[in-house]
Amino acid sequence: MGKVVAFITMSLDGYVAGPSDRPEAGLGDGGERLHYWNFGGPWTYDQESFGSATGVDKDYLEALFSAAGAWLVGRTMHDLADGWGDEPGFGVPVFVVTHRQHETVVKGDTTFEFVTDGIDVALGKARAAAGAKDVLVMGGADLLRQYLDAGVVDELALTIAPVLLGGGKRLFDGIGRTDVVFERVAVLESPWATHLRYEVHV
Amino acid sequence: MGKVVAFITMSLDGYVAGPSDRPEAGLGDGGERLHYWNFGGPWTYDQESFGSATGVDKDYLEALFSAAGAWLVGRTMHDLADGWGDEPGFGVPVFVVTHRQHETVVKGDTTFEFVTDGIDVALGKARAAAGAKDVLVMGGADLLRQYLDAGVVDELALTIAPVLLGGGKRLFDGIGRTDVVFERVAVLESPWATHLRYEVHV
Repeated sequence: MGKVVAFITMSLDGYVAGPSDRPEAGLGDGGERLHYWNFGGPWTYDQESFGSATGVDKDYLEALFSAAGAWLVGRTMHDLADGWGDEPGFGVPVFVVTHRQHETVVKGDTTFEFVTDGIDVALGKARAAAGAKDVLVMGGADLLRQYLDAGVVDELALTIAPVLLGGGKRLFDGIGRTDVVFERVAVLESPWATHLRYEVHV
Repeated sequence: MGKVVAFITMSLDGYVAGPSDRPEAGLGDGGERLHYWNFGGPWTYDQESFGSATGVDKDYLEALFSAAGAWLVGRTMHDLADGWGDEPGFGVPVFVVTHRQHETVVKGDTTFEFVTDGIDVALGKARAAAGAKDVLVMGGADLLRQYLDAGVVDELALTIAPVLLGGGKRLFDGIGRTDVVFERVAVLESPWATHLRYEVHV
């Protein structure tokens, strides 16, 4: 069985999205700065096409994606990302945890299955789909925190973007358990971010 | 003229002290886990004597201390640390920013001067004392944030301790300016923490 890896980017002041996240600016005001690393440098919400991660950031993403056999995402994040457009490119099943039923969506090599039976059922489906590969929890913050609190996350892959957002959605607000031990297994530095990988011991 | 370096340790969820900080437990509930790196491993508030930083952590501290010509600290932090006991060992002047007047305190090689004229005056005194060396702002969070907001911090030396505190005092709560650009200049990893050094561009 693979690992359950929680994978997310946070500002120095702890936000995974800036204030006023909305479909046309899914990461909120200033939140695009969180993900400069993901696109090889600065980008804006108005941009027609984006660059790609380069160097260390590219290696980091490729390592995570190639190890992933399934992804888990919350409905809000799915919707704010507009379902990752016409070519999501995950290449493996994505399970969307939601309270609202929705038919399965197939886009290219990616299947989005909407799970309304809670986080445990969603994880079970993701594990079954992933087989020996990893299940990646990509957020949003609420879903990631629920899985951390449930004690089922094996690794936290936390990218720290060197920006302050001053408001928005905090990753760890309302975290239930503070007894978790994080053991650092890797630190990767790029010009745009620092990627911290921790084994999670509960 | 030396640099102004803001130097502090933060949990993964952004706290520099846990809930209920008080003289007998200055870092609050669970907050001692923030500073395992500072003492070479786990310690508790009840411990009679502490260990010392080792390896990378020791090098990091020595680099900061040897470059420092003066320190700045908030009154609350000074009091919670009980003035660092009988042998503070800073070896250079420490300026305590406070609203309450207090006579200068001399303990061994360390002088504590209490400054009641605001953060600008305190910084001026610290710069004058430091000469060509650095001024280190060691917190608390409120003082550090005020200096960041004033645009006078040249470098942020931020230690991330891999713990969750779930409550307490947040470093960046109420930060005023979010347009600061942080340029990473060093990352140091120890078993207990990750030390991130950023140049601050305002």
